[in-house]
Amino acid sequence: MALIVQKYGGASLATPEKMLFVTERIIKEKKKGNSIVVVVSAPGDTTDELIDFAYKLSKNPDEREMDMLLSTGEQKSIALISMALIDKGYKAKSFTGAQVGILTDKTHTKARIIKIKGINKIKEALKQGYIVVVAGFQGITEEEDITTLGRGGSDLTAVALAQALKADTCEFLKDVKGVFTANPGIVKDARKIDVLSYDEMMELASDGAEVLQNRSVEYAKNYNVKLHVRGTFTEEEGTIITKEEDIMEKVVVSGITYNKKEAKISLLEVPDKPGVAAFIFKKIADAGINVDMIIQNISQKGTTDLSFTILRKDIKKIEGVLGEIRKKLQFKKYLIDDKIGKVSVVGVGMKTHIGIASKMFKALADKKINIEMISTSEIKISVVVREEKVEQAVNAVHKAFNLGQKALSVEK
Amino acid sequence: MALIVQKYGGASLATPEKMLFVTERIIKEKKKGNSIVVVVSAPGDTTDELIDFAYKLSKNPDEREMDMLLSTGEQKSIALISMALIDKGYKAKSFTGAQVGILTDKTHTKARIIKIKGINKIKEALKQGYIVVVAGFQGITEEEDITTLGRGGSDLTAVALAQALKADTCEFLKDVKGVFTANPGIVKDARKIDVLSYDEMMELASDGAEVLQNRSVEYAKNYNVKLHVRGTFTEEEGTIITKEEDIMEKVVVSGITYNKKEAKISLLEVPDKPGVAAFIFKKIADAGINVDMIIQNISQKGTTDLSFTILRKDIKKIEGVLGEIRKKLQFKKYLIDDKIGKVSVVGVGMKTHIGIASKMFKALADKKINIEMISTSEIKISVVVREEKVEQAVNAVHKAFNLGQKALSVEK
Repeated sequence: MALIVQKYGGASLATPEKMLFVTERIIKEKKKGNSIVVVVSAPGDTTDELIDFAYKLSKNPDEREMDMLLSTGEQKSIALISMALIDKGYKAKSFTGAQVGILTDKTHTKARIIKIKGINKIKEALKQGYIVVVAGFQGITEEEDITTLGRGGSDLTAVALAQALKADTCEFLKDVKGVFTANPGIVKDARKIDVLSYDEMMELASDGAEVLQNRSVEYAKNYNVKLHVRGTFTEEEGTIITKEEDIMEKVVVSGITYNKKEAKISLLEVPDKPGVAAFIFKKIADAGINVDMIIQNISQKGTTDLSFTILRKDIKKIEGVLGEIRKKLQFKKYLIDDKIGKVSVVGVGMKTHIGIASKMFKALADKKINIEMISTSEIKISVVVREEKVEQAVNAVHKAFNLGQKALSVEK
Repeated sequence: MALIVQKYGGASLATPEKMLFVTERIIKEKKKGNSIVVVVSAPGDTTDELIDFAYKLSKNPDEREMDMLLSTGEQKSIALISMALIDKGYKAKSFTGAQVGILTDKTHTKARIIKIKGINKIKEALKQGYIVVVAGFQGITEEEDITTLGRGGSDLTAVALAQALKADTCEFLKDVKGVFTANPGIVKDARKIDVLSYDEMMELASDGAEVLQNRSVEYAKNYNVKLHVRGTFTEEEGTIITKEEDIMEKVVVSGITYNKKEAKISLLEVPDKPGVAAFIFKKIADAGINVDMIIQNISQKGTTDLSFTILRKDIKKIEGVLGEIRKKLQFKKYLIDDKIGKVSVVGVGMKTHIGIASKMFKALADKKINIEMISTSEIKISVVVREEKVEQAVNAVHKAFNLGQKALSVEK
């Protein structure tokens, strides 16, 4: 008999019909003789609707009250799923974050979990045969104020509970069957990945494939919690995410990911002297703008060109910041290019294999796709190309690394 | 500086605009230098919508989970009202029933308040200058399960808090300006009542004028909490409800009330022997049917006729019960009449004045309105008439007792 934590997202809970489907899915797992803890998000668009309502009352809603408001969404889900389970003849019991004592710090709207004080309440209910249904996303401070864990926080609740309960596995039930080698929407023969390391998952998730919240994967890595991303509508195995050492056969490249959310900022003829980059990126960070890739060209005539990418939504904000920086640094001018796309190759095997980058670059060159920026990490190589070339680039690279279904069947 | 508990119902909180209006109303009271505790219901139709959703998942929703679900409605209201108050520059803080420790028994969906454990949390916040916003309708058991107090339970929360805080007054802000001598919709010159005793309020509320939940008035009576029913849209004084001894000038009749929700059941030729009535009404009570008025005629030839009124919604249910009773008792037949109306005269002065009943009967007789049943209590006389005569009857009695505005101005 295994102890399984199952997490269902808001899209799976949007209507009574979908909730009944989720109920049946939980019962299937229970019937196998397993102990089940279910973690749920708020139904459908509930959270967004609550936020909209709040902004009608305040341009800048108080964060303590925002948490009080938003936590009602998950509370609705736990009550409804539990009553549906009870209706089908199963013992079920719902708990809010407060009731199981998910203790957090006081950082409202993005609190961090400190510990789970009421874990024995869950253990006791499991022992009595209950399916335990816990509200994701929410916690409570020492002062009993309600907090929330930030977007995607229900994933974190699931992982934290799995860790505290020493669960055998923490399942994330999704519309998709697992994590794919590339977005099946643009790569026809993209293949479901059987197993991934935590680091690979994080690198894949940080771009397009937003399957799991990265903080949750990091938490799982720190505590070695085995994750399983699988489909709500199938009983097939999905993608297991586990520690690198446990992955028997390390593939060189696990997947290709991309995004079209970034813009490239170039500062031309920046005075090239110590402390300049530090100054620039401090100013940008202070404005709350996240910088992704950074490239600095070789210096010529005492100046250098500096390029970096930011999220497009921050373009307006950065223009003000760049104006300020220019007053101080007197660079020549800046360019903003929001027609770029980023394509990345991810795989733990890269650490030990050479030639991955050049293989990627050749695949792009063969298709005459120009590379505008390059950045590499231990298990990821990213390039910036024209936005309209992204789909072509992903397909070319996917093929070059033999990631498709056909390639796999040939290999076997 | 006074300490005031203000309770706002769901209709006042149905939209962001209405919530902003309520916010301004609270601020007006705060600006007078008073300490304010606000108790709110769920916004608009939220509770009914949640119930509808629940019934899509279960024909017979588990009551613990129902309470978990319904309590989210009030939690939304407290968060939204608090953020609106903060937005206007006031210190405000919301609390759920659990957070202020409104301890109840375990009777889910209609729990009774045992005590308020966290009252010091509210006192502390008030001392720090906060407007405290508390979720009505909800409590928590010793085991930390969420409970609700039944329909109208937010009124009870307000009264219980007012008692525990020793508040100067407990205000109920309504669409109407107070309690009226009769429904202004049918009696043109109905007048707002300045002061009522708890008993009068209960008798008035038990019929048409559902201004306050009766359990709350009873609670207020037991603990001597002064209530004030007043308009949300005016700053005029409304109706004060207080103990009889504090009412300086006791009027004979305070108001006329009516309802058209009941049906008259008549059992003909029931064997007249000891224990028969007990048997019949035990059976009816066991079926969960509330009986209001009961009349038994004089016995003739060893049988008697028995009439009583029940709510029309219970007609279907009582037919089954009467079938059963008949098997045992062999009465001749039963009649169901759902075209009746009940008109009542309420007033503490009745206790010491004679002739109230005859004055009422004469007013009806003058209008040729036939009286079908009569029942009297210490401070109330009720008659059953044809449903279509109710408006005429209320007006006639209202006039007979000189309750109108004109009458008042003449008296002065």
